[in-house]
Amino acid sequence: MSEFTDALADVAAATETALLKLIPAGDGPESQVIDAMRYSVMAGGKRLRPFLVLATADLFNVSRACSERVAAALEMIHTYSLIHDDLPAMDDDDLRRGKPTCHVEYDEATAILAGDALLTLAFEVIAHQDTHDSAKIRSDIVLEVSKAIGAHGMVGGQMLDLVAEDHVLGVSEITRLQRMKTGALINCSCQAGAILGKASETQRHLLNAYAHDIGLAFQIADDLLDIEGDPKELGKATKKDEAAGKVTFVSLLGVERAREQAEILTDQAMKHLEIFGEKGNLLRDLAQFVIERRN
Amino acid sequence: MSEFTDALADVAAATETALLKLIPAGDGPESQVIDAMRYSVMAGGKRLRPFLVLATADLFNVSRACSERVAAALEMIHTYSLIHDDLPAMDDDDLRRGKPTCHVEYDEATAILAGDALLTLAFEVIAHQDTHDSAKIRSDIVLEVSKAIGAHGMVGGQMLDLVAEDHVLGVSEITRLQRMKTGALINCSCQAGAILGKASETQRHLLNAYAHDIGLAFQIADDLLDIEGDPKELGKATKKDEAAGKVTFVSLLGVERAREQAEILTDQAMKHLEIFGEKGNLLRDLAQFVIERRN
Repeated sequence: MSEFTDALADVAAATETALLKLIPAGDGPESQVIDAMRYSVMAGGKRLRPFLVLATADLFNVSRACSERVAAALEMIHTYSLIHDDLPAMDDDDLRRGKPTCHVEYDEATAILAGDALLTLAFEVIAHQDTHDSAKIRSDIVLEVSKAIGAHGMVGGQMLDLVAEDHVLGVSEITRLQRMKTGALINCSCQAGAILGKASETQRHLLNAYAHDIGLAFQIADDLLDIEGDPKELGKATKKDEAAGKVTFVSLLGVERAREQAEILTDQAMKHLEIFGEKGNLLRDLAQFVIERRN
Repeated sequence: MSEFTDALADVAAATETALLKLIPAGDGPESQVIDAMRYSVMAGGKRLRPFLVLATADLFNVSRACSERVAAALEMIHTYSLIHDDLPAMDDDDLRRGKPTCHVEYDEATAILAGDALLTLAFEVIAHQDTHDSAKIRSDIVLEVSKAIGAHGMVGGQMLDLVAEDHVLGVSEITRLQRMKTGALINCSCQAGAILGKASETQRHLLNAYAHDIGLAFQIADDLLDIEGDPKELGKATKKDEAAGKVTFVSLLGVERAREQAEILTDQAMKHLEIFGEKGNLLRDLAQFVIERRN
């Protein structure tokens, strides 16, 4: 896997370079919101969504100059969702990846605005002609992304998670919640790469199935790490779900069946990539990484 | 003016019909966020931004089917900005137009998410092919709008307003704040109509100057109403700025000079419309309305 972790690190570095370029430091008293945007996008993370955009776009030989802009835009959206989810009125988290969350480092108002501005900037970056010569492609990506992250996608998933605190969820409900809350953005990362690459309907359908499977496997792996992971390697406390009485795939299925399920999903994900031949290797390695990762 | 107020009421009705159609009631436990979106977009208001989109698009004979979608999208963005600005961490307002604000009617988490989802849906509506056959036009509107409302526009203006509480502002700083916080969205309402109408560079430049002037006049009129308005007609308490020790155009210039300034801006705004001949009458009437309104 070390070749793969190098590839992952390269994508992270390229994404961070793009993010800093797309969010230049401001001046004037209002630049506090820009500082907060830069702080939050640079707070680390695996840059999984950028990786999916780039690896998918690579299948179709899209220029990295194009795909890196879209990758950075989707990472802005991921960051906005984390900033807002961490707010006191939502999940009320003070730390993320060992660093103070945005509203702790700045203040609540600045964090709300930084999230709003990152979401807005993501659409600006996608719609800008530097992203692709074809306005149809730019507009299609805006549409795909906005559908994925709105009230019927990511935002709906966060709402569901908040109201779920008062309900007992079963496997199908937890699956639906995960598909909306985290799956939709993972999915549209692949779709954005596919749109850039002018993928066929069949190719898009297969990439959709792949993303669906690895999204779910990723969530199950996350739940397993919360039970079995090493707090030092993870950079965060474990057994939080259990302590909070939160229903997860692991609490519903048990450790063994949850692990089996993640492996089945990963195998399925690999099968969807067959038509791409060797070009699909980066996406294959990612599927494997998702369930083998230690943090 | 009664013909004009009829036109304004017609636009408001058409916008509300479009908004309800674009945000259909949801089902499932996550539909609370959709309820909150519908609640806030239907909480009234003059629908000034939709009026500007439609009246500008009318200059170029754009079909109302197209311009009403963009008008509704910009009203979603205006509503999102109000929901977030009203939050306890921001301006902490419990009432708006005599109704409980979104976080009071629902809760803070739902209000944050409803704002996020309205912003996102606005881009979905603009990018959808029903808005215009030309992907270039859709993409250009996404770009224009996202630039106007991000960290260098509306969101930056709100940040400036929050940090300004600790500073003494002069006329030029107050003008800059207003241009960012409310002017940018008013401006891009005209520009969105102009893009739909494939306006020339000169036409876009003149509409930009018009919007700039009425935006500022609107703000001065607002400050004057806070001093001189009738709380019953306004549907809100007056003399709030003074009580809060807030610097406004009126506190800086005095009532007389502020009124003069608003009239000068309105006259200037009218002049920018000359090349449009009689077709510009709706926009002319709006400029007059902005400073004559009682609420």
